Amino acid sequence: MSKIVSLCKRRGFIYPGSEIYGGLANTFDFGPLGVELANNIKKSWWKYFVQDRDDMYGLDGGILMNPKIWEASGHTDGFIDVLVECKKCHKRFQVDKLEKKDKCPECSGVLTNPKKFVPMFKTFVGPVEDSSSLAYLRPETAQAIFVNFKNIIDGFHPDLPFGIAQIGKAFRNEITLGNFIFRKLEFEQMEIEYFIKEKEWKKYFEEWKGEMEKWFLGLGINKKNIRWRAHSKDELAHYSKRTEDIEYNFPFNGFKELYGLAYRGDFDLRTHSEKSGKDLKYIDLETNEKFYPHVIEPSFGLERTMLAVLSEAYHEEEVKGVKRVVMRFIPQLAPIKVAVFPLLANKPELIKKARKIYESLKPHFFTTWDDRGNIGKRYYAQDEIGTPFCVTVDFDSLEKNDVTVRDRDTMKQERIKISELANYLKEKLNG
Amino acid sequence: MSKIVSLCKRRGFIYPGSEIYGGLANTFDFGPLGVELANNIKKSWWKYFVQDRDDMYGLDGGILMNPKIWEASGHTDGFIDVLVECKKCHKRFQVDKLEKKDKCPECSGVLTNPKKFVPMFKTFVGPVEDSSSLAYLRPETAQAIFVNFKNIIDGFHPDLPFGIAQIGKAFRNEITLGNFIFRKLEFEQMEIEYFIKEKEWKKYFEEWKGEMEKWFLGLGINKKNIRWRAHSKDELAHYSKRTEDIEYNFPFNGFKELYGLAYRGDFDLRTHSEKSGKDLKYIDLETNEKFYPHVIEPSFGLERTMLAVLSEAYHEEEVKGVKRVVMRFIPQLAPIKVAVFPLLANKPELIKKARKIYESLKPHFFTTWDDRGNIGKRYYAQDEIGTPFCVTVDFDSLEKNDVTVRDRDTMKQERIKISELANYLKEKLNG
Repeated sequence: MSKIVSLCKRRGFIYPGSEIYGGLANTFDFGPLGVELANNIKKSWWKYFVQDRDDMYGLDGGILMNPKIWEASGHTDGFIDVLVECKKCHKRFQVDKLEKKDKCPECSGVLTNPKKFVPMFKTFVGPVEDSSSLAYLRPETAQAIFVNFKNIIDGFHPDLPFGIAQIGKAFRNEITLGNFIFRKLEFEQMEIEYFIKEKEWKKYFEEWKGEMEKWFLGLGINKKNIRWRAHSKDELAHYSKRTEDIEYNFPFNGFKELYGLAYRGDFDLRTHSEKSGKDLKYIDLETNEKFYPHVIEPSFGLERTMLAVLSEAYHEEEVKGVKRVVMRFIPQLAPIKVAVFPLLANKPELIKKARKIYESLKPHFFTTWDDRGNIGKRYYAQDEIGTPFCVTVDFDSLEKNDVTVRDRDTMKQERIKISELANYLKEKLNG
Repeated sequence: MSKIVSLCKRRGFIYPGSEIYGGLANTFDFGPLGVELANNIKKSWWKYFVQDRDDMYGLDGGILMNPKIWEASGHTDGFIDVLVECKKCHKRFQVDKLEKKDKCPECSGVLTNPKKFVPMFKTFVGPVEDSSSLAYLRPETAQAIFVNFKNIIDGFHPDLPFGIAQIGKAFRNEITLGNFIFRKLEFEQMEIEYFIKEKEWKKYFEEWKGEMEKWFLGLGINKKNIRWRAHSKDELAHYSKRTEDIEYNFPFNGFKELYGLAYRGDFDLRTHSEKSGKDLKYIDLETNEKFYPHVIEPSFGLERTMLAVLSEAYHEEEVKGVKRVVMRFIPQLAPIKVAVFPLLANKPELIKKARKIYESLKPHFFTTWDDRGNIGKRYYAQDEIGTPFCVTVDFDSLEKNDVTVRDRDTMKQERIKISELANYLKEKLNG
């Protein structure tokens, strides 16, 4: 794990947040390669779950919403950490994470009585800081979907079942965090609320288990590294009849929650109807029935996906006595698709030809250029960031109009005609 | 303008935020078509300014950062609104926006003395709410770039000039807002900090003016609707020698700020070096000189781009006595690229053939299906959301294996062989 963290920083995937100012705990910034990886994951999710389906509507709701929403959803009352404070060192701890309930785990000081704490970030809208201007940074994206349910119904008249999908940031003011990007103060969710008829919930629950698994495994994940875990009765939220998590075998501490799938009944639409006074019932035009659709909620986290993808991709191997680190991203997720090199950096004719190839590939694939150091080091550097193909222009290229294409995973090299290069790469990268 | 606002809500581009709970002023949610439009704009920006260039590094920094950053940047001291409060109705106003300085513009009550107010959203990290846990929602994305400057230098060793680019949300707790999505509490910035040698600032300032204009006009904007405006001396920030805005001729109140371009000198890197104690100087490997690079900052807003694009696209016309509303988006920005219809909804053989075509196009273009109402209404509905092409399967299609392709802008219809349809559309949409 520490190797992945170090590679992520060194090669521009993930930086600790605010580092030059001593940091801000549990925040991280994505570097140039991290942004591409994150964007590729989001793009894949959006295409798979929204654009390629007939029954899905996209949404992008605000981080700041009317605070009544969090009252209705139960967050201000029910989304609670119970904390104790050490009377000596004044650190705070979640009661249910403490082994000894009466002593500070850090300084053995006496602890205060437990107090409730809502782990939502508060803020105030407008210049006056009082209860009338109080707002929260959303702790989940889901509520924006329920609040816009009627907008989707009115604008698109969808038949049941249908879903609303959203990618966006959420914030949790939790005190027990850590494990790199596994838990962050701010994180990105990819959530779907799928609206169904009550009697069909078991069928769609199973269907969504399959869909979630299929998409995730499609990112290059080994099936042996995932498992489903059903929530026990006392873990279930009061409105949920069934919730299951996909767990992933993370390198730092084994199987941990990756995504959740919850059957939420009609709790959300019913409650928001009651609290807002707006009728969020659905009218079945065939039967004229009016009812609250039930909800299946597949919920994904971007950062946990990234962490799983990074862990899965990381490989060390020895090649002819030299250690090689290679990130075996599937081509679709690789931040950079192709690297172009002139064999030598001091030969203008090689550089000129290589630049021309580089310029011709760039509009089609995210392509990088490297003319530093020797060719072996350049391969090594591209392997470490998971670039699937390296294209080298050498002296033969000048005569024969071909190049060496080197495959990241097999390390095999092929000579390819320059005129066929773009198509060759297109096939390999999309295939 | 009210027509655009109404179309945006009705057809699923932009909804008022938290509407069923009475709203939250100056927040908006993007509906299914708004998300696609926003994503298409961001994708175009990222490709043009990051992926297609050799000298640009992407970044995605946190919304929550160490608060020392905002002290160093001058925001906690210098980013200030001066407000007065009405003693009668307790509303607050920005002093410099008031015509009469002594009376409330809403109830004519007496106003308090002016007070300073920092329009950043505050929050607290952790359970204790005091100055040690205070944090702000970032009011701009730029600072994350300066704070990560050294990470980029250490990981990528770029030569000057080079840039760091970021797309992300920013938040301003301003009281004077309004004009639809022109000013929102939370908004998305697309910013670049471009690092140069001091002596070259004029050259690169002009170059960036050209680049900003070129990208924006490429979104289908008429050149007559933009103009550059240089900030006068007393408008300039103390560290800026030149700042110019692109203004766009918005339909609600004429030419208003769209984007900004600022020459910031070495203010940012110098100040962050001094305040953080970390050396952010750049070392020129050729000359061995060590210095703070100077900065050109092209800054774009996503929502203003959307508003300009929506305004520019909106057209009303009369066709054979019937009013037609058409959104003339360029194909690249159109939320939906192709719509497929069976001529009649009650003919299984038409539906079967049309579905097959729909399924075959969907992996290549974001494609929608419609079999409601008559064909004229369906065209009208697609025009209103800017879908460039409608494909209709009729009885001739069954025999001749061709379809009618109808062009949104010209309303001309062409018969195209089904086997050639994907290529035909690909050419039209990418051309």
